[in-house]
Amino acid sequence: MKCRRCEKPAAIKMPRHNSAFCDLCFRDYLHKQVMKAISDQRMFEDGQPILVAVSGGKDSLVLWDILIKRGYPTVGLHLNLGIGEYSRISQAHVEKFARSRDLELIVQSYQDDYGLGVVDIAKETARPPCSACGTMKRHHFNRIAMEKGFAVVATGHNLDDEAARLLGNLLNWQIPYLKKQMPVLSDEGGKWARKVKPLYRLPEREIAAYAVLNQIDYIIEECPMSKGAKTFLYKEMLNRLEENSPGSKLQFYLGFLKERPSAFPQQIEAETQRCASCGQPCGGDLCGYCRLIQRVGAS
Amino acid sequence: MKCRRCEKPAAIKMPRHNSAFCDLCFRDYLHKQVMKAISDQRMFEDGQPILVAVSGGKDSLVLWDILIKRGYPTVGLHLNLGIGEYSRISQAHVEKFARSRDLELIVQSYQDDYGLGVVDIAKETARPPCSACGTMKRHHFNRIAMEKGFAVVATGHNLDDEAARLLGNLLNWQIPYLKKQMPVLSDEGGKWARKVKPLYRLPEREIAAYAVLNQIDYIIEECPMSKGAKTFLYKEMLNRLEENSPGSKLQFYLGFLKERPSAFPQQIEAETQRCASCGQPCGGDLCGYCRLIQRVGAS
Repeated sequence: MKCRRCEKPAAIKMPRHNSAFCDLCFRDYLHKQVMKAISDQRMFEDGQPILVAVSGGKDSLVLWDILIKRGYPTVGLHLNLGIGEYSRISQAHVEKFARSRDLELIVQSYQDDYGLGVVDIAKETARPPCSACGTMKRHHFNRIAMEKGFAVVATGHNLDDEAARLLGNLLNWQIPYLKKQMPVLSDEGGKWARKVKPLYRLPEREIAAYAVLNQIDYIIEECPMSKGAKTFLYKEMLNRLEENSPGSKLQFYLGFLKERPSAFPQQIEAETQRCASCGQPCGGDLCGYCRLIQRVGAS
Repeated sequence: MKCRRCEKPAAIKMPRHNSAFCDLCFRDYLHKQVMKAISDQRMFEDGQPILVAVSGGKDSLVLWDILIKRGYPTVGLHLNLGIGEYSRISQAHVEKFARSRDLELIVQSYQDDYGLGVVDIAKETARPPCSACGTMKRHHFNRIAMEKGFAVVATGHNLDDEAARLLGNLLNWQIPYLKKQMPVLSDEGGKWARKVKPLYRLPEREIAAYAVLNQIDYIIEECPMSKGAKTFLYKEMLNRLEENSPGSKLQFYLGFLKERPSAFPQQIEAETQRCASCGQPCGGDLCGYCRLIQRVGAS
């Protein structure tokens, strides 16, 4: 099979485009998809330093790789979640990536810094581990971005992640989540760091292929705490759809982005409150993170 | 395993209720679900004669059976779609059901009455057969109801049908279809017959079990024209979900019914137009059915 663009031997099949690309044309295509996401959603302002959240998985390392190659000023941020061997290997991948490219990396460890890892939280509270982990990550991304003066945090969420989250929100009619599921979460006039997802147009499969073709080493195992998470079921359902009609996953997610403002409009909220404990913006008196920490402390 | 209600030996497991029923308690449960659907959605007015569309499949025959047993005045309507052996067997099942219970049945044949079956339409137009067949059925249900003076037509659409249609409409963001996907389609002040779906709370599996337990013979084969229809894919995706979390399918559909008025509100339409050819209400000059017939005539 030949590359659709340059007719050299193809390195990857692209069923959703009914074609194939060689190594270089695939890289070019993937970069263009990321640049399109950044410009369509106005993710960054010129020269603005970006805090890239890197877990050690393929998505966030590929994202960091592309942002550097496109000339964006970045600093990496790795949170060690305190999930035994899995966290140790994840951190090693991130450190290797940063060292080999001479990049600035901030590493914070839940266990060392706060004496509390995701495993402890999951043990102590009745919340599903992925949900508690998400709350903790959001808090620390926000805190570190504010402390270090970053106006924007980029995460490696890909098309499969976003489409699966969307399917789950629709199957359960989670209206508040549907109202705010977007590739850019606003900084509300500088009150907190803006969150952006530059990989939202790219499926997992293409990101993994890019990682392999560009010699990016990443942790392949899924997080051991995520076993049985509903997101895998939603991904499986959407993969079945994609297999039947290549391109459906992107069409589903882009269709939502188009229809969201009229179907699930965001309320214009009054002044966002500040958490009485940590000072981060939140909906009530205490933010989700501080309530979690309080519950663990009390148990 | 014992019946949850009366402790006699169970005849059917109910994973979504984490229990099991004997023959009689299952029948009672199923009837109650239908009566709940009828009353929640105000489907019928007292004593109003109901035209029941019966294909010969399990759903419509079970629906007819329940409506009779609950004392509703009904007349059956069977459309022979002109799909060879499949249509012959379907009609035989409907006639046997009506004859054995001494019920009034109207049979109309596309081929005999109009010289045109679904097979011809599918051959002559580029439309998927299920879509053309749906348009034809809607037209004839409406026409016959108006001619014979029925204010309401009941169809056997079940929970799997409605949830699959909903999933397809969401995956493709078919907003006009989402706005009008309901278990009751209004008669717009008597302009046309009201369409109701009293089985919308019941999954296929429970309806099939009811048919077997109540000795209702039905055509088991799927329509040969429906091969490859997307609805089977959507049903498969939802069955995977249901297997993982029993009850999810109903929760998905009922959640939609609750959220539909705010997420996908119906526009208040100006005076509905009448089709210039057949006189049925429609959106433009010619209704979908008459455009279909015209296209086949012109080819």
